[in-house]
Amino acid sequence: MIGVLVPLIYDLYFSAILAGVAEAAYDHDLRLLLSPTQHDHAREASVLERLTRDVTDGALIVLPEESSPELARVMSDAHPIVIVDPLLPLDDRVPSVAVDHRAGADDAMRHLLELGHRRIGAVTGPPGWVATEARRTGYRAALARAGIAFDPVLEVASDFERAAGASAAAMLLSLPEPPTAIFAFNDAIAVGTMRAAHERGVRVPEDLSVIGYDDIAYATMVGPMLTTVRQPLGDLGRTAVNLLLRLLERPSSQPRQIELSTRLVVRDTTAPPRRT
Amino acid sequence: MIGVLVPLIYDLYFSAILAGVAEAAYDHDLRLLLSPTQHDHAREASVLERLTRDVTDGALIVLPEESSPELARVMSDAHPIVIVDPLLPLDDRVPSVAVDHRAGADDAMRHLLELGHRRIGAVTGPPGWVATEARRTGYRAALARAGIAFDPVLEVASDFERAAGASAAAMLLSLPEPPTAIFAFNDAIAVGTMRAAHERGVRVPEDLSVIGYDDIAYATMVGPMLTTVRQPLGDLGRTAVNLLLRLLERPSSQPRQIELSTRLVVRDTTAPPRRT
Repeated sequence: MIGVLVPLIYDLYFSAILAGVAEAAYDHDLRLLLSPTQHDHAREASVLERLTRDVTDGALIVLPEESSPELARVMSDAHPIVIVDPLLPLDDRVPSVAVDHRAGADDAMRHLLELGHRRIGAVTGPPGWVATEARRTGYRAALARAGIAFDPVLEVASDFERAAGASAAAMLLSLPEPPTAIFAFNDAIAVGTMRAAHERGVRVPEDLSVIGYDDIAYATMVGPMLTTVRQPLGDLGRTAVNLLLRLLERPSSQPRQIELSTRLVVRDTTAPPRRT
Repeated sequence: MIGVLVPLIYDLYFSAILAGVAEAAYDHDLRLLLSPTQHDHAREASVLERLTRDVTDGALIVLPEESSPELARVMSDAHPIVIVDPLLPLDDRVPSVAVDHRAGADDAMRHLLELGHRRIGAVTGPPGWVATEARRTGYRAALARAGIAFDPVLEVASDFERAAGASAAAMLLSLPEPPTAIFAFNDAIAVGTMRAAHERGVRVPEDLSVIGYDDIAYATMVGPMLTTVRQPLGDLGRTAVNLLLRLLERPSSQPRQIELSTRLVVRDTTAPPRRT
């Protein structure tokens, strides 16, 4: 039996990871003990505490909130764990499965640059998170490689939610010289960006290209359908289960840190910039 | 420890129910054993088999596929179970939690009728399912009460998925005398209906009112935001846990069948019909 700590269940991002975990668990005849933490530090600590005195053989911890004392204790305990999609940079003694977000950001930017965009805005996630910082590094490196000076007014922080994404995009669209493309650091921000554009009469993709990140189900709900960077969320869950099984079979093996690749999915929200 | 059988995890409908289950489990310090069945009959049977020889004290079975022999056996066993959101009509000896879909359909129809619609189409779910039949009964009864003859060409079956919903809506929109409003039997169908309308240059809500059913997250992703009938999915999960706890505490108590109410949520996709 393995424990699974996950921030939220009613959420397409986490439920995609959880579905991968459940698939692999079914294949290996493992039982899954599920504990959502509701993005709450105190609750995460209490669930971690329960977990280690519990009957699980090991645990997957998805997007742990912070390097809390409880998490540090669990990590140093003999209890086998695998961190999935770490929020903060990890000690390399902890086994983990993550996504190569820098390469994913590279793909997004290459697509926009190849379409001819030069003024590209970014609506990022929360500063400090691995997912934000790696994508930001990819964004800025791609600009530098293309010989485009980084313009700080074009990079606005958000919180990976639609509403904040819409506000951040509204700021970019009201600049004296607005961007012709926006790299939204996740699909929720991209949907917020499209809404902000729609409210201002800015057409997507004719006046503004929008690219997201995740490729979760609502990427294809909106019209036009979202160009985005697909994260292998199901594979993230499946790989985590396999890593944990390996750890249970050979407890003395070296902890592995696996990074999975993303894939660009071009749909209808990106196009060459308008000639002005 | 309680087992939870659920068809899918990567799905906003089921993850909303599961989130309610997880909330209640956390409050009662219960551990959750999760088993997705992937809408697969053989898998559901095997999971049911595992479940009953397993260490769980009882189980919640969400939307069981059919009255399979395994399900019948589990139902007649001493193993305490609660059926959540039954797909088919249940024997009244089985404890269950469901939603009053007929009343929900009544609310949807009352809203459209009050706006002045008389030619109202319906895109239903799969025939035979409780959720379809109860809503269909509500749809037809509301027409009858309003003195509107039921027109069979205005009622088209679908499968609760977006693509089939779009095809069914396209049929309605290409009728010589198309409806001025469509009651989509879930939100996925409503999103498909809006896409079909968009592709034909039919504006929502100016030319066509659309009402959904569920109120899951993507109801507010699309623009315009969807008017819909909200199902209390989290409450469905929470109530199921409480019912199971009651059963565990008093095994000889009468099985209860609880029905929860829906709520109409008026947003931007419904309006009075155009005067022609």
